[in-house]
Amino acid sequence: MTLSTDLGAAYAAQMKGVLAQRLPPGRVLDLSHDLAPHDVGEAAFVVRAMAERFPSGSVHVVVVDPGVGGRRSPVAVACRDGSILVGPDNGVLVPLAEALGGGTAYLIEPGRVRAGPRVGTTFDGRDLFAPAAARLALGAPVAALGRRTSLLPLGSAAPRREPEGAEGSVAHVDHFGNLVTNVPTAWVPPRTRAVRARVGRYAPEVPFVTSYEAGGVGRLVALGSSFGTLELAVGRGRAADRLGVAVGAAVRFTWRGPAGGRGRRNRK
Amino acid sequence: MTLSTDLGAAYAAQMKGVLAQRLPPGRVLDLSHDLAPHDVGEAAFVVRAMAERFPSGSVHVVVVDPGVGGRRSPVAVACRDGSILVGPDNGVLVPLAEALGGGTAYLIEPGRVRAGPRVGTTFDGRDLFAPAAARLALGAPVAALGRRTSLLPLGSAAPRREPEGAEGSVAHVDHFGNLVTNVPTAWVPPRTRAVRARVGRYAPEVPFVTSYEAGGVGRLVALGSSFGTLELAVGRGRAADRLGVAVGAAVRFTWRGPAGGRGRRNRK
Amino acid sequence: MTLSTDLGAAYAAQMKGVLAQRLPPGRVLDLSHDLAPHDVGEAAFVVRAMAERFPSGSVHVVVVDPGVGGRRSPVAVACRDGSILVGPDNGVLVPLAEALGGGTAYLIEPGRVRAGPRVGTTFDGRDLFAPAAARLALGAPVAALGRRTSLLPLGSAAPRREPEGAEGSVAHVDHFGNLVTNVPTAWVPPRTRAVRARVGRYAPEVPFVTSYEAGGVGRLVALGSSFGTLELAVGRGRAADRLGVAVGAAVRFTWRGPAGGRGRRNRK
Repeated sequence: MTLSTDLGAAYAAQMKGVLAQRLPPGRVLDLSHDLAPHDVGEAAFVVRAMAERFPSGSVHVVVVDPGVGGRRSPVAVACRDGSILVGPDNGVLVPLAEALGGGTAYLIEPGRVRAGPRVGTTFDGRDLFAPAAARLALGAPVAALGRRTSLLPLGSAAPRREPEGAEGSVAHVDHFGNLVTNVPTAWVPPRTRAVRARVGRYAPEVPFVTSYEAGGVGRLVALGSSFGTLELAVGRGRAADRLGVAVGAAVRFTWRGPAGGRGRRNRK
Repeated sequence: MTLSTDLGAAYAAQMKGVLAQRLPPGRVLDLSHDLAPHDVGEAAFVVRAMAERFPSGSVHVVVVDPGVGGRRSPVAVACRDGSILVGPDNGVLVPLAEALGGGTAYLIEPGRVRAGPRVGTTFDGRDLFAPAAARLALGAPVAALGRRTSLLPLGSAAPRREPEGAEGSVAHVDHFGNLVTNVPTAWVPPRTRAVRARVGRYAPEVPFVTSYEAGGVGRLVALGSSFGTLELAVGRGRAADRLGVAVGAAVRFTWRGPAGGRGRRNRK
Repeated sequence: MTLSTDLGAAYAAQMKGVLAQRLPPGRVLDLSHDLAPHDVGEAAFVVRAMAERFPSGSVHVVVVDPGVGGRRSPVAVACRDGSILVGPDNGVLVPLAEALGGGTAYLIEPGRVRAGPRVGTTFDGRDLFAPAAARLALGAPVAALGRRTSLLPLGSAAPRREPEGAEGSVAHVDHFGNLVTNVPTAWVPPRTRAVRARVGRYAPEVPFVTSYEAGGVGRLVALGSSFGTLELAVGRGRAADRLGVAVGAAVRFTWRGPAGGRGRRNRK
């Protein structure tokens, strides 16, 4: 079972205590407890990249849940590859569920899961998702937790391909301050040597390279990120600070070809 | 065995190396290595909440130890529920020991535990607590480590109930900047809809709610925290920054009832 | 297998997914994913201290790799004690390899390790080091990964002993802001009570003590660090902030003896 949260280590440890009561040792793996607080869209992007590489049949618990205690529903998703996702129905599970082949969502009904008194109303990670995930990891069928439902959509805009470039947004500011966008690297035409990146108050033309330091220390560059999308980075620096932008910022790329002109597919 | 420290991951890893030399794989679980540095009182509050949910019979190692190298004693506590606590005798173990039914404390005598040369005098977590905990996890009786002693008290003021409210303090600023107090949620009279919270330079009257966003994004609210005590929070914001207060700040709550007046038990 | 990186938890989790596909559960241990970004020299110092305490025969994966995607080579080192190191050939493995008795380095040839398509060119931790480490942990000989090579040196200056003191540098700013130098504590003459420490714009004379609070809260002191080298610390404070220095800063110590004069070996 994997855990991905924005809770910090201390709250996550309370979840691990609940799980330790119910599961044999060594079954729970921390992915991150430092996801950006409250940012469902960024978490969805990062969680997918982390969890999709785990073996089929894993149970993935995701707690980025600013609406806890309110009306959003707790859900579990049985994915086509045999993996199970557990978390709030606020969109955070959607990209991962899609990456795992889609799945069937079920409500988690508190009465079927909880044991003992509830302390507070704001920690479903500990009081609801952890005990539900433990039951599922021990073999309970997802349908035993509650009735079928449909996942709410994530509601983030998809990137858009244009004749000479692409429009998208910053999906993730990573640990190094790199700006990871949602524009697929596969959209960049062959022989592209540079891109013009309109983001925030800037529109620099930067080299399109394959290593952070190809442009030199301190220089802004564009690369194919390890998420399969374009990113902007500064050699040994923080692009997010340099450009003053955050998750959600709009980005427009224009491709530049080998001779300084525009790159084109099938150009000869 | 669980590890809870303010050491950061890198120092904690040195402890894990010592443990890996002595224990089979998979026996050690990180709770947090990001407890607020040097703050014994806050750590005691958080450690209790993290560790008390683990199965009886666990060994819990706690290293928040600003006095290391000085005169404070290293101790191990055999708790009534079969759990064992290992750490400095500076109060950090006290609330957890109480939560586990109380226990009997023993000094850890370095000569009975250490193996090999000591590097420096300031890392008992690695040089003393880890090897002691490994011995205990392998079945050694706590009394084998040294003579009986009594735990020093934690020395933090208990909250105080008042006719129309309560006085206490901020016990923990959590990962989200929420101000978690030591005032039990159970003291809030039924039908309370709001509380006046005098803290720092402010005395706002805030709604008493059950979800962080019930008051709206950016609004200050009071809730029953997941520690069983009252907390002040800002929807998707950081109450500690908003109010400019830190751990230890005095807090005085006054209950407000349904009609805007004061809440009362048994009011009709 | 241990993991030590500057990647943050989220990127490290992608490595853990790759490993989970190939290894039985419970084989992978996080040391730190919060090493200072891009700082190969500091990482080399910290990684050695973390990993050298693990049992012989461990596989240690180290990813502090600012040159990823460029010309630096990926390597694996078979150490004399049976441990295996995996990471970039940028010096980060050198002190650990020496601490484990030296070893024989081999290139990791991507064609012998990779499986499936590569996403981006900048995450060898996930795409190369993790699958290589998994093969080694399952028993493959290091020589199966590629041809023999020699590790590049780390290229940091060694400390220098002087008649009345020593010259060195800040090797690590630790979690508490302590300035850990590369000057061996063993060089300090017996009966030394204080040291003059010339660092940054300051040259304070500070007591040479054995506990952080021996000088009182807020006071600058010198101690033998838990790395076996001298450190400068502030009781419950951050020496790095107080003195305004960072990793790499030059430090010059002068020993002071019991009577306020200079300490000397064999002084009578």
